[in-house]
Parts: sequence; C-alpha cells; structure tokens
Amino acid sequence: MQTLFIENEIKYIGSQLAPHWIYKNYKLLGDAIVSFIGEVEVKLDEMVDIEDVINNEPIYSKKMVNFIIEQFNVTLEEMVCVQRLLISIIKDIIEDMTNKKIKRSGDDLFFENRKLSVSIATQSITSCLVHTALNIIKDGAPVSASDLSEIGILDIKAFANRVMSEFKKEIEDIKSATYKVRGVTE
Amino acid sequence: MQTLFIENEIKYIGSQLAPHWIYKNYKLLGDAIVSFIGEVEVKLDEMVDIEDVINNEPIYSKKMVNFIIEQFNVTLEEMVCVQRLLISIIKDIIEDMTNKKIKRSGDDLFFENRKLSVSIATQSITSCLVHTALNIIKDGAPVSASDLSEIGILDIKAFANRVMSEFKKEIEDIKSATYKVRGVTE
Amino acid sequence: MQTLFIENEIKYIGSQLAPHWIYKNYKLLGDAIVSFIGEVEVKLDEMVDIEDVINNEPIYSKKMVNFIIEQFNVTLEEMVCVQRLLISIIKDIIEDMTNKKIKRSGDDLFFENRKLSVSIATQSITSCLVHTALNIIKDGAPVSASDLSEIGILDIKAFANRVMSEFKKEIEDIKSATYKVRGVTE
Amino acid sequence: MQTLFIENEIKYIGSQLAPHWIYKNYKLLGDAIVSFIGEVEVKLDEMVDIEDVINNEPIYSKKMVNFIIEQFNVTLEEMVCVQRLLISIIKDIIEDMTNKKIKRSGDDLFFENRKLSVSIATQSITSCLVHTALNIIKDGAPVSASDLSEIGILDIKAFANRVMSEFKKEIEDIKSATYKVRGVTE
Amino acid sequence: MQTLFIENEIKYIGSQLAPHWIYKNYKLLGDAIVSFIGEVEVKLDEMVDIEDVINNEPIYSKKMVNFIIEQFNVTLEEMVCVQRLLISIIKDIIEDMTNKKIKRSGDDLFFENRKLSVSIATQSITSCLVHTALNIIKDGAPVSASDLSEIGILDIKAFANRVMSEFKKEIEDIKSATYKVRGVTE
Amino acid sequence: MQTLFIENEIKYIGSQLAPHWIYKNYKLLGDAIVSFIGEVEVKLDEMVDIEDVINNEPIYSKKMVNFIIEQFNVTLEEMVCVQRLLISIIKDIIEDMTNKKIKRSGDDLFFENRKLSVSIATQSITSCLVHTALNIIKDGAPVSASDLSEIGILDIKAFANRVMSEFKKEIEDIKSATYKVRGVTE
Repeated sequence: MQTLFIENEIKYIGSQLAPHWIYKNYKLLGDAIVSFIGEVEVKLDEMVDIEDVINNEPIYSKKMVNFIIEQFNVTLEEMVCVQRLLISIIKDIIEDMTNKKIKRSGDDLFFENRKLSVSIATQSITSCLVHTALNIIKDGAPVSASDLSEIGILDIKAFANRVMSEFKKEIEDIKSATYKVRGVTE
Repeated sequence: MQTLFIENEIKYIGSQLAPHWIYKNYKLLGDAIVSFIGEVEVKLDEMVDIEDVINNEPIYSKKMVNFIIEQFNVTLEEMVCVQRLLISIIKDIIEDMTNKKIKRSGDDLFFENRKLSVSIATQSITSCLVHTALNIIKDGAPVSASDLSEIGILDIKAFANRVMSEFKKEIEDIKSATYKVRGVTE
Repeated sequence: MQTLFIENEIKYIGSQLAPHWIYKNYKLLGDAIVSFIGEVEVKLDEMVDIEDVINNEPIYSKKMVNFIIEQFNVTLEEMVCVQRLLISIIKDIIEDMTNKKIKRSGDDLFFENRKLSVSIATQSITSCLVHTALNIIKDGAPVSASDLSEIGILDIKAFANRVMSEFKKEIEDIKSATYKVRGVTE
Repeated sequence: MQTLFIENEIKYIGSQLAPHWIYKNYKLLGDAIVSFIGEVEVKLDEMVDIEDVINNEPIYSKKMVNFIIEQFNVTLEEMVCVQRLLISIIKDIIEDMTNKKIKRSGDDLFFENRKLSVSIATQSITSCLVHTALNIIKDGAPVSASDLSEIGILDIKAFANRVMSEFKKEIEDIKSATYKVRGVTE
Repeated sequence: MQTLFIENEIKYIGSQLAPHWIYKNYKLLGDAIVSFIGEVEVKLDEMVDIEDVINNEPIYSKKMVNFIIEQFNVTLEEMVCVQRLLISIIKDIIEDMTNKKIKRSGDDLFFENRKLSVSIATQSITSCLVHTALNIIKDGAPVSASDLSEIGILDIKAFANRVMSEFKKEIEDIKSATYKVRGVTE
Repeated sequence: MQTLFIENEIKYIGSQLAPHWIYKNYKLLGDAIVSFIGEVEVKLDEMVDIEDVINNEPIYSKKMVNFIIEQFNVTLEEMVCVQRLLISIIKDIIEDMTNKKIKRSGDDLFFENRKLSVSIATQSITSCLVHTALNIIKDGAPVSASDLSEIGILDIKAFANRVMSEFKKEIEDIKSATYKVRGVTE
C-alpha cells in the first residue's frame, strides 16, 4: 500500500474514480492511496452510486480533501469493509486532533448532526476503488453540512498524511493477521 | 446476520471457535453473532493465533463478555476487516455510553493504555469465525489490563445487545453498498 | 431474493439484460427476479449469446412472459446452474398446472418437440444476470414453436408469480444447504 | 466429467463421502460421478448434515442405488445447485421410464408423498462432494418411504447409467454456456 | 485447451486481444490457443500495457509469429503465471531445435541480449487473455531486436504447432496435478 | 516473498509440508520460500501425492537440497503454475552454472534422462504449499537418478540462494504484471 499527497489542487468530477488513474498520473503501480485538495462536482452521469442517481442528488462542494484508493485482488464486499475502516480511522484522527465528537454512520461522518463527508466504493474489471472526501469549506454544498475548518483541522496536508499513514498500517496489519492463524475444524 | 445473547454463563476455552458451534448449540443457521459472559482460559494447544503460541502467551481472564461470529462465503481477509469494524463499533459504543476515551489499535482496545480486549479471526473449510472478548473484571488477567467495570459499563447484557445490533446493521449496510454501484472502466 | 410481477407490458429488446436494470426501474436493491409480459425482439447487436450471432439467429416473438434475474456474489458458472434450476422449476409448474408433458434440454423447454422458450445467462462487472422467456402467443416466432396458450396456461400473472415464488424458495434453500454441513477430510 | 457404474455392491456408511475416494478406489482422476448398489447406514458420527445430527436422524436403507460426485474448482454453493440439477435429472428420467409422477422438493424426491431419496452436498479442502441415493427396496428405512421397485424401475444399472450420462451432458453443457456469452455493462 | 494454426496471415493491431475473438472467428468454444503469422502494429490507444503507454512505446514488427490464448475461470494472476510458462516452453523449444542459448526474463525472450518477443496478459469480464509474438523478420522493429530467422527457426508453422502442443500438454498436466493431492492440516 | 537458507541440516519426512511450518520454525510471517539440505524419506502415510500412494512409491534420497514455499491468497491451480515456474527457474540456473543440458517435464527435472528432482504442490485451509528437492548425492534413491554433484553444482548454498532470489523476483514481477494492464471488452 503506497501513499502520496498530491500538492497541486485537482477538481474532482468523478472520472478520477477509474482503474489505473493513480498509476497513469502518479506512477504508483499496485495498491495505493492518494490524497489531494480541490473542488468537487460530480454530475449525475458520472456518479457510480445509483441510489444518488435515482434520488437526483449530484455532489457539489467548493473545497474538499479527497482520498482515492485502488486495491487489486479484493472483492467489492471486502473493499466496502476497507472503505468503512478508512472512515473509522478518519473519525478517530479528527477526534484525536480536535477533541470534538464525530459520528460515523456507515460510510458517512457527521459533526453535530451535519454531514462532513461523501464516500463510495466500486469495482472495475481488474481492481476495486474508493473515493472519500471531507469538506474543508462547506460553502456551496447542497445539504446541511459541516466542514474541517469549523471543527478545527486547519493543516489539511498533515491531516491527510496522517490518515494515509494509519490506513496503510491498518491494511498491512490486516494482511499479517491472515498469515498467523491456523485453520479450525469441527 | 442473526444475533443472540446467551443468558447462561459459558467458560470460553477456545474450542468454541469452531464451525457450526453456534448452529449446533443455539440453532441459528447461517451468518450469526452471539454473545455470552464467562471466564476465559485458552491454553496454548487450543489457540489459533500462532504468534501467541510462539510467544508462549496463553489467555486468561476471570470474567469477560464474549462475542463469536460465524460468516459464510467470505475470505479470511474480509473476515479480518469485519473483525476490525466490530472492534471499532465496540469502541464507539463504549465512548458513547461512558464519555471515556478508548483507543483502537488493529484488533485491540485500550483504556488509559491498559488492554481491554482480546480478538482473533480464523477460517474453517466452510466458513470464517471471529472471537472477541472484553474484560468485565480484570482480576487474574496476565497483562496490565483494564475492564468494563472501571470504565463504567455495568449492564453487560444491554451493552452486548447494542454491540450486536449495530454490528448487524453494519454488515447488512455493507452488503447493500455492493448492490447499488455501477462498475467503472478505463 | 426479491420478486416482482410488473403489471405494464414491456417490449424486451435485450438492453434490459443489464446490471441494475431492476434496481433503476423498480427500486429492488440486491438479488431479485422480476417478470413482465411483452413482445420480444432481440437484434443481433444486442444479443449476448455469441453462438446465435454466429448463426445469425435473432430472436422474435409477439408475446412472451419474461423473467429477469440479477444475482450478486455468484460466478457465471453458478448462475448458469441457477438458470437451469429455474427452467426445471418452470417445467414442473407447467406440468403440474396442465398435466401436459414438457421436456427440458439444457436451458430450453419443449412441448411436443416444439420450442417454448428462450434463455441466456451472462455476467457484468458487479453481478450475473439471466433472461428467460416463454411464448404466450407463438405467432411470428421464427422457429417451429409452441406457446403457453396451446398448453393451457391462461392466467400468465398467476403462473409467473408461482414461478418466482418457487424460485425464491429454491435459492434460499440452496443457501441454507451450504450453512448446515460440516466439511470433510481425507 | 467421468462416469462409472461399479459392479460390486458396497455398503455406504458415510466415510465414502471423502475427497479422492473415487480416485483412490477407481482411478478416475478429476471430476467424476460413480454409482453403485448397496445397503446404506450412516450413523450420527459419520453424518455431514448437522441438521440430521441435531434432530437425531441417522440414515438406514436396506438397498439403495448410490451416486457419489466429486468436483474440483467449484464453491459449495455451486455444488448444491449441481446437486439439485442431478435430482431434477433423476426425476425426469424416472418419469420418462415409468410414466409415474415424481415430486422434487429441494434435494428430496417423493412418490405419492413418500420419500424416495436422500442427498447431501459438502466441501473438502480441495473439492466439493455430493452423495445421492434412492431406495431400491424400502424395507427397513426409518421414515415413510417409497422405492424404485414399486415405481417400476427394475434395471437399476441401466437407470444409473442413464442418470450419469445425462448428468455428464448437463455439466458439460453448463461449462459451454459460460464460454459463449459476452459480458454486459450498464 | 484447443489449438489451431491459422493458415492465412493476419495483421495484429491489438484489437484481437478481446474476449471471444477466437470463438467468433475460428469457432473454438472455450479455452484455446491459436497461432498466426503477420505484421504487428499496436498503436498507443490499442495497448493494454499501461506501462508502455506511459513510456510512449508503441509496438511494431514487420513479421511475427503470434499466439493468442483465451482461458475461462482463471484469475489474472494465474494467467500471468500461465503466460510465463508459455514463454518458458517457447525458450526450451527454440533451444532444443537450434542449440542456441535463449534467455527468459519475466515475459521477455532474448538472443544475445537482443529482444526476440513481446507479450502481455489481461482480463475481460468473462475470461483472461494472452498475446505473445516473436519476430520472424526483425526489420522495422523499434528496439534492438533479434528474430527467429537469424536463430535458425525457419519452419514457423512447425514451430508454432510444437509450441501449442507442448503448452496444451502443460495446461492439462497442471489441472491433473490439482486433482491428485490431499489437502494438508496443521 | 521472503527467502531464507537454513544452515542446519533437516531430515525431510513430509510433515514439514504443513501450513505455518515456516512461520513456527523460522518466524517468517506470510509468503516465503526456505531452503535446507538433508536426507529425504517420505513414507506412504505422509505423502500428499495420492498417485504415488496408489503406485506404492515412497520417496527416499540420502541428501537433497529442499525448497518449501508457502503462499497465501492463491488457488491450488495457481500454486501448481508457480511450482512449474520454480522448476523452470531451477533448470535455467543449473544450465547457466554448468553448461549442461537439463530437461523439464511438468514438475520433474532430468539430466541425461535420469531424474534429478521430486516436487509436489498442495493446499491447506489457509494457504498453498510446495515442496521441491534435488538430489545432491544420488546414493539410495529408488529410481534411476541423477544428482547435482555429477552435473557439477557443488556450492549448494550459493545455488539455493540464487534459486530463491530469482524465484522471489519472478513472483514480485508477476504481481506487478497484474497491476499494469487495462481490462478489455468485446
């Protein structure tokens, strides 16, 4: 699991949630998580969450910190579990850095009942992918929202690097856990 | 995902982490999580964690609240992810019930740097299994330990039922998340 | 496994054999079987059966009862087995309702050596899919055909609902059968 | 898929439902179905169906025609589907040979509401296995039973060979069906 | 595993590395390897090797002997192993026919440090695919190259048929090897 | 993929081909290949190759260089491919070190038509395993045999380390190859 914080801002429009986007653009081959800051605007025809399409809920936020993960040799069901572990790690880091209380519900994070994040996991022919993003500035977000500024996370790069570092540790630890146990029988 | 709190106390000795133990004893067929209270004593020859066997670290605790999960049609790697989501859910519930700060590190929980829990995930020919237990009374535990009593969780059955209820919700939500996304291509 | 009989007629042109067609149109999330009545016209460029494309055999029938299944977390080989169980269930129901003799050969049904049905199973990135349809009125079908009218099935909706109900029971029973057996060793 | 009718009688006691039993005893390497005639007595500690163990229902029949299948590279869920297709094929052959009406319910066959068969599918580390058997003479069977004699199947070897031949054709046809379809996308 | 040497020359442009290309054009249904002679020109937008796209390295060779494999029910990781076994078989055959020394490095073959071959393995929704080709005449190849002419392989059809025959034997032997071993336990 | 040459001699009796034997004894957690020198005596009841058991062919050799591989998250079919790549790598290294001609046939190596090696691949509940060994001194081997001494490989440790080093490179290169290709469609 490789990690990279991308220094330049990128507008996330959904098309980046594609196999090998990380490899093609940042030369990281294999399992990786990258992070970048940027405006987020996902129109209905780029959305992978069909529930949002049905409900006619495009995504917009003026400035978010984005995470994109690509993993090979996992099923979509495992990737959704991995996504929720990432969300849980993000929650723990925000709480640790700010002493504020964050609530996780599935793949969503809330501060004072206002939504802080968006997230989706999906599958390609050769890999699985996750996009997760948290509002930095909530202006323009279409739902009642919170953001990292009001919670007190100001150094976004340091925050993103800590998230990626703890996520990488978790994934490697999960793999180790599968190597060290004997199988059981009836 | 079925749930059951078993009213009578059971001494956990490791042999219960076996395929169909839940079905044979409690008639729950298929994916299930059960919970019970009891002394925990896992000797080296019943341990599935080979790391603990190598380090000669048997498990003992006078009174723990135990959770056993059996899931079918999952890989061990996914089951370890599921285990960590369970641990994360337990952490969030303890914090919500007590306003104390709990730390998760992989599959371990800590209160004030003292260990609160044990956990392991493993595989059989037909399923995957998890055992997780938290000290209720720490007397007799071999490492510097904490327990639910000192943190302020006194109604263990209510606590266990809330854990199982939120875990069930998480698992069902994960499955739903795999049904609602379109695949992506390059 | 959810079931739905769709009241309005739909012309089946092949494009409906697509991932999430059921979810997008009928809000059934996850494994599901739906049925509807309608004209069937699958041109060569919409066919998924390459054998038919090679043999230049487009499909046409004036009025058929259609079944579409989508299942997640199955391989294509398992989905073909499931397809044949569906065909077998349909045969048994027609025989039970009419006392006529139907012959199943692979995924085809015959009455008096005349073909009654079409069927195909295929795969998407995230799921497997089956389309099965039986002639209600055989006029216009390009091969020597039979239909449900001449066999004596007149209440198509009742017939379709019974098919879906027994199919759902079979699928759930299959899953149960995988939960109740101990693995065996040499 | 290889087939073999074993001429000498064998008492089936459950231990034959083991990986490589066919290969070790009859030199058929790989996917195979074999058939033999013999008394059937499966005591509780040899049963793989835990439901029967819980219900304290050992199996006994004085004379049955037995089928054992071993397949590699299939999941247990697919193997249960394959088992039910075998049961469906057996039903169709009996009906075709006798003009009597047989009822299939899951993996059971009935004649005039009396049970004709037993069947189970299970898994080993390297393969999946099925045992299916039909009463030839019902004397001594513990439940209200039917048998092939009263239905009019007298040449058991010819019957068994036809079952195996049609089963082999079905399995090979299923594999072909997975090779000839293009994948579909949203 | 079916084999076919295609007599007429075909210009390979990358588009042939597609699911069912063999079946649609040569009626071989299921696992197959085919071989043909022809010019090779793969432009960047037809390449499946993203590394070559990043490095801006299109493929050109005036005359190559091409092999295309399609296998069902394998993972991409297994298909890459199969690809390397094919390369290893080709090396052994060239050495055996010519007494010249060939070097294999991953999926590349070299004669006197000059590159003799190109190869790639990839995945579709329903299968995995390999393309491997060796220079017959090196004129026009963009890298420092060798070819079969200078090594002394002149009867390309005989060579290709021997490669396919030994590859087929290897694949069938691999499958047999999975059928004949008992699983092991701790 | 970790590698280790074990300095002390070990008599290989078959029981070492077990899950976690490497981890328990040499603390290498996860995918690994180890090598050691020692007498080899595998009696019939320790053999995993049922073909050898049927043919009553126990294995004996006075002194062999042994390789044991354990890999997680692979199927047995892939592990057999990996085994054959290892055999191919060993062949290439012997030829490169000695200028003698070695023949590979499946998982066997021959020098002047005399057998040089034994090898088997198998599966446990949690992993796949390979044992491969080459005669150092052929005295006492039950079949017409060759050995590394007569071929001219005298520094066994250097040889074993080169085998493990090139095998590790091959496995890591295979994984990379799965990360760098786009999927293809019809």
